[in-house]
Amino acid sequence: MRQATGIWLDGVPVGDAWAQDRGLHYGDGLFETLVLRQGRIRFRELHTARLAEGCERLGIRLDAASALPAAERLAGAQDALLKLIVTRGSAVARGYAPTGTEIPRQLLLRYALPPAPDAEDAATGVIVLKATLGENRLLAGMKHLNRLEQVLARAEMRDSSAFEGILCSSSGLLACGTMTNLFLVHEGVLRTPRVDRCGIAGVMRAVVLREAARAGIPAEQADLLPQALASAQEIFLTNARLGVRAVTQLGERRLPVGPVTHELRSRIASLDA
Amino acid sequence: MRQATGIWLDGVPVGDAWAQDRGLHYGDGLFETLVLRQGRIRFRELHTARLAEGCERLGIRLDAASALPAAERLAGAQDALLKLIVTRGSAVARGYAPTGTEIPRQLLLRYALPPAPDAEDAATGVIVLKATLGENRLLAGMKHLNRLEQVLARAEMRDSSAFEGILCSSSGLLACGTMTNLFLVHEGVLRTPRVDRCGIAGVMRAVVLREAARAGIPAEQADLLPQALASAQEIFLTNARLGVRAVTQLGERRLPVGPVTHELRSRIASLDA
Repeated sequence: MRQATGIWLDGVPVGDAWAQDRGLHYGDGLFETLVLRQGRIRFRELHTARLAEGCERLGIRLDAASALPAAERLAGAQDALLKLIVTRGSAVARGYAPTGTEIPRQLLLRYALPPAPDAEDAATGVIVLKATLGENRLLAGMKHLNRLEQVLARAEMRDSSAFEGILCSSSGLLACGTMTNLFLVHEGVLRTPRVDRCGIAGVMRAVVLREAARAGIPAEQADLLPQALASAQEIFLTNARLGVRAVTQLGERRLPVGPVTHELRSRIASLDA
Repeated sequence: MRQATGIWLDGVPVGDAWAQDRGLHYGDGLFETLVLRQGRIRFRELHTARLAEGCERLGIRLDAASALPAAERLAGAQDALLKLIVTRGSAVARGYAPTGTEIPRQLLLRYALPPAPDAEDAATGVIVLKATLGENRLLAGMKHLNRLEQVLARAEMRDSSAFEGILCSSSGLLACGTMTNLFLVHEGVLRTPRVDRCGIAGVMRAVVLREAARAGIPAEQADLLPQALASAQEIFLTNARLGVRAVTQLGERRLPVGPVTHELRSRIASLDA
């Protein structure tokens, strides 16, 4: 029972390839979304560190240090958005238990880099979604391949014109956006939800926290109730592709692009990596 | 940015195939584990109904009614264990949001059917795991492809001789085994954890509840604390492959195969489907 004795894709017999990959069967893997500019992945060391930590936590034996340099070499000179998927590899035996002898796979996808929004002016509305995120300390923070919660959250936004949807955890705390990390500013203090029960420890989130420290902006990772959105003077979203994206509309309320958002955005935009 | 402009697998350029499948990228799909005996999938109608409900909930446009008959035709005459994976199909655009125009994929894997354990005597120990399951009402009950929680739960059992590990939900209620549903008997009353916050609505679980009703055994789906394990006179596990599997050891405690387990196991073993 260790290996399949027949495999069909849409009714046609096929060889192994992806058919027994644990990434497909279980979402047993990780990914990184990477911005390639002038032949260099932005924040390559931070992405590498997160990938290495995820592999460590899942027990995937990948040489993470070589993965992003290899991706740079493959992707070529043109600016691009890259997605690197790492899976544990094909199943050695049926069932959930990894054997430890699987050979990890790396899949790299290159996409044209969308034009940067005119960040000063881009209207960015957010709504708070009904969908919530399950809490699991073993998975929290990792950029793993189990993303059905995000798929269903985006499906909830089908009829909305909002740019992003904000998710709470199943225990009612603010967590993140469907594709972004969330930052709030209260009286000059920068706050972002902790990512130890759900959510992803975004690389751009880490950059924001680092740059806030450098700029002398007080910052904390905190347990935040949804009401903290309404009381925030500034709200912004982050991810590798968007950088720092100011929220200009929260439900019916319009928000200015405030000084903390402005300073962090300028600092990060001007970083080499 | 809608389609990838380059794809590499382990450094080698590849065509589309699975590389953009949302099952791989997000676990955006479902699966069924099926026992094929004498050319017929056991409990085919129940598996079909669950698959159809999962597709409905995820918005995957599959003709679920035709999927299992097609699997029977492909798999041939020999008794086998089948795994049917249904994904939403290749991504039409980058990002979590489905467009509704994806074309679902069906992947069927056939495995040799393992010999049935000598159920009367098979020693079956269980342990309660530290790993817990996140709670998400939008996902609960579905046999979807986000199974990293089960992978990590099985990894926790690496050094254990137990047959199965029992998981609680993040809010501390009994949920299920890593690959089974869980049933307890207290003073003649059959109880199984609800599956509306986490866990899978197993087909064999449904069969047990149906057969209990037919046999006049009082049964309920309930919120159960872990202490309910210790106070149970009988415990058994279910899934499509194992049928009803009596638990004979809970930690240090030995359990008999009691009358409720015995009756349900006999009834279900004798069913045609």
